[in-house]
Amino acid sequence: MNFSYVSHLDCPVCSNTYDTNSVHQLCSCGSPLLVRYRLGELKNDLDREQIKARKPDLWRYHELLPVTDPSHVVTLGEGMTPLLHFHNLGNDYGLSQLYMKDEGLIPSGSFKARGAAVGVSKAKELGVQELAMPTNGNAGAAWALYAARAGIKSTIVMPKDAPSIPRGEVALAGANLFLVNGLISDAGKIVAQAVARDGLYDASTLKEPYRIEGKKTMGIEIVEQLDWQMPDVILYPTGGGVGLIGIHKALLELIELGWVSGKLPRLVAVQAEGCAPIVKAWEEKKERSDFWNDSKTIAFGINVPKALGDFLVLRALYETNGAAVAVSDEELLQEQSKIARLEGAFICPEGAAAFAAARKLTQSGWMKSGEKVVVLNTGAGIKYPDTVQVNPPILNIGDIIPS
Amino acid sequence: MNFSYVSHLDCPVCSNTYDTNSVHQLCSCGSPLLVRYRLGELKNDLDREQIKARKPDLWRYHELLPVTDPSHVVTLGEGMTPLLHFHNLGNDYGLSQLYMKDEGLIPSGSFKARGAAVGVSKAKELGVQELAMPTNGNAGAAWALYAARAGIKSTIVMPKDAPSIPRGEVALAGANLFLVNGLISDAGKIVAQAVARDGLYDASTLKEPYRIEGKKTMGIEIVEQLDWQMPDVILYPTGGGVGLIGIHKALLELIELGWVSGKLPRLVAVQAEGCAPIVKAWEEKKERSDFWNDSKTIAFGINVPKALGDFLVLRALYETNGAAVAVSDEELLQEQSKIARLEGAFICPEGAAAFAAARKLTQSGWMKSGEKVVVLNTGAGIKYPDTVQVNPPILNIGDIIPS
Repeated sequence: MNFSYVSHLDCPVCSNTYDTNSVHQLCSCGSPLLVRYRLGELKNDLDREQIKARKPDLWRYHELLPVTDPSHVVTLGEGMTPLLHFHNLGNDYGLSQLYMKDEGLIPSGSFKARGAAVGVSKAKELGVQELAMPTNGNAGAAWALYAARAGIKSTIVMPKDAPSIPRGEVALAGANLFLVNGLISDAGKIVAQAVARDGLYDASTLKEPYRIEGKKTMGIEIVEQLDWQMPDVILYPTGGGVGLIGIHKALLELIELGWVSGKLPRLVAVQAEGCAPIVKAWEEKKERSDFWNDSKTIAFGINVPKALGDFLVLRALYETNGAAVAVSDEELLQEQSKIARLEGAFICPEGAAAFAAARKLTQSGWMKSGEKVVVLNTGAGIKYPDTVQVNPPILNIGDIIPS
Repeated sequence: MNFSYVSHLDCPVCSNTYDTNSVHQLCSCGSPLLVRYRLGELKNDLDREQIKARKPDLWRYHELLPVTDPSHVVTLGEGMTPLLHFHNLGNDYGLSQLYMKDEGLIPSGSFKARGAAVGVSKAKELGVQELAMPTNGNAGAAWALYAARAGIKSTIVMPKDAPSIPRGEVALAGANLFLVNGLISDAGKIVAQAVARDGLYDASTLKEPYRIEGKKTMGIEIVEQLDWQMPDVILYPTGGGVGLIGIHKALLELIELGWVSGKLPRLVAVQAEGCAPIVKAWEEKKERSDFWNDSKTIAFGINVPKALGDFLVLRALYETNGAAVAVSDEELLQEQSKIARLEGAFICPEGAAAFAAARKLTQSGWMKSGEKVVVLNTGAGIKYPDTVQVNPPILNIGDIIPS
C-alpha cells in the first residue's frame, strides 16, 4: 500500500494533464488544475472501516491526499472538527436535522488551516523554498504559520482594512507582511509581480492545485461523521469557493470508491449582499461570474469580487441542484448572536452568513423539515472580536450586583 | 455497563463524603470536594482498547466522568486536542522528546471549555437554573457559552483589565456580565454575595466539584495519545491550578484501573514572576500559599494571587517530585515569538510561560535530553492579539514589493 494514491493533475477546462512531482501552478490555458488519484486501485486496497481507529486529523485520509512521503507532512493537528447537532436553532428554523461543522476548532482558528496544511506539505515535498500569496487575512495567517513550521519563507499581502488578528499571526510567524490600500484583488496583482520577478511559489487561491485537497477533507469528514451517509444539503460561505469545490470533488471521489452512495447533497454557495458575484451568475444561469465592483461586507473572508474558480463553484451548484443565496450584514449579525444564545457557539461572520441563508431557505420551503442540513462555520468568532459591541456595567471593590 | 461509574464526593482535608445526586459546593470544612468513581468495577467492565474507536472528544471517557445520563451531556465537541512533537523547538532547548498539548483547538479557544463542558453538564443533571462565577476571562466565556447551550442562566464578573475578547463571548452568550475595578479575588467576593443573596449555583473555581473532572481529561488524553505510556514531565501554567490537580487525579485513577503503569510524571507548576504564590510556597516547602499582593503579569489567566486549591497543587508537586518555576513576562513573550517562528503555532501567553519554564529547567539540568516532556498550551494566541505589535509596510494599488 502507498501512503498516497495520487496519480496526476488534470485541467477541468482543456483536459491537459501534468505530473505531481514538479511544481505546476495554473494550466497553460489559465485554468486551475485538479489532483487525480488511482481510485480503482485504492478501492481494492482500503476499506473505509480501517480509517475509524486512525488519529483524528485530516491525515487519516492520506491515501486521498497528494503527499507521497509521510516525512513531508507538516501538521498542527488540523481536522476532524466537530459536527454538532443544533437542536435549539433547528427548532427556531423548523429543521429537525440541523448540523454545524465547526471549523473554529483548528489551528489558527479558521478552516484555511486545512488548505495550508496540505498545500505547504506538498510544497515542501516539491522542494519549494519561498512562497507568496494575497489574502483577506485568515489564509495568509494559516499559510505563514504552516510555512514557518516547514522552514519555508513566505510573503503575504493583505488589504489594510482586513481584520487585525491575522496580521499578528503572519508577523509572529516571521513572514514578510505587506498591507495594501485596496482589495484582495489588488493584493493579488502585487503578489503576481513578485512571483514573476523573484521566481516564488504562487500560493494564491487555486494557483497551486493542492490547497483544494486540504479543503476537500471537510466533505470526507462530514460523510464519515454521519456514518458514511450523505446529508441532503450543505451550505458554505463562498469567497474564493475552494471549500465548496473541494467538498464536491471529495463526494465524487467517495462515490467512485464505493464508500458512500446515493444522491449528492444540494450544495449552497452563500455570499454577502455587498459582494455576491456567484449569486448573480447563478441567478442568470451563467457559467462564470463577473467582477463585483465596490464590494463591501463585514464578513471579510467572503469579500472576493471575482473568484478564479467561479466556474467550478457554479458547476457544483448546477450539478447538485444546489443554490446560491445572498444575505445582508444585518441578517448575519443577528444570526451570530442568536447562535451564541441558543447553542453556545461564537461563530465567525462568514459562518453566520451561511446560517442566515439556511433560515431563508427553510422559510422559502427550499429545505424541508426532516432534511439533514450541514452548515459550515468556517472559523472561530474570537478572530473577529469587533463584531460584538459590549458595554457592561462596572463595579467597584465592595459593590454588590444590583438585584 | 453504566454510562458513568461515579460513586460519591469526598473531602481531601477532613474525609467527609457527599452524594453526587444533589448540589454540593465546598465541604462543610471549607475544602473543595473531589469526585470518586467505582474504579474496581470499571476495571472489570472496560478495556482501554474499547476507547480507541470512540468519538474524538472528552466524552470518550464518560465512565470516568460524573454525568450519569447521556441526555444531560452539553457538548460543543471539546477534547482530544492535538499532542504535537516539537522537533525544532526541542533542538533549541536540547530536548529530543518535546511535545505540546494544544488546548487552543477547543470551543472558545481555551482549555476552560473542558471544565465548563463537564461542569455545566453536571449542573444541568442536578437541575441548576442559574449559576454565577468570577473569572479572568476565559473561564467565564466558556461557562457562559456552555450554560447558554444548556439553557442555564449565568452571571459573570471579571476584572475591568481582563482581555477584551472574552467579554464579547460572555455578552453574546446572553449572560449577565459585570466588570470590576480590581482583581479576580475582588470579583470573587462580589459573586459570593450574589450567590448567598440569590441562591445561585456557585461555579467559582473548585467551589463546585465537577470542573476538575473536565480538566482531568487532559491527563487521560496525554497518556492515550502516547499509547498509554506516561511522559516524564508535564509542565502546566498555574493560576487556580485546577488542570494540574485534575491531571494528577486522572493519572492516579488510570493507575488504579491498570490502564497505565510506572512512575508518575514530575508535575511542574509554572507561574509568572509577578504572581508566583505557588512557587514561593514550594520553595519554602509549605503546604499552602500566601496571598500575593499587587500581582501583575501579561499572562492574565495565571494572575491568581491565592488559589483555593493551592494545597492540592502543592501536594501534586511534592508527590511527583515535581517543581514550581516562575518566568518573567519578557521571557514568555520571547518564547511565544520563537514558537511561532520555529513551529508555526501561535500560542497564548500562559502556554508560552510554560515553554519558557521548560527552557529554564533544561538549562538547569532538571530535565534531561531524552526525557518525554509535555507542555500544556492552555489557549489560542488569537485570544490575546495585543501581545503582538505589528507595523507592516503599506503599499498602494500599483506598487510593487521592494526587492
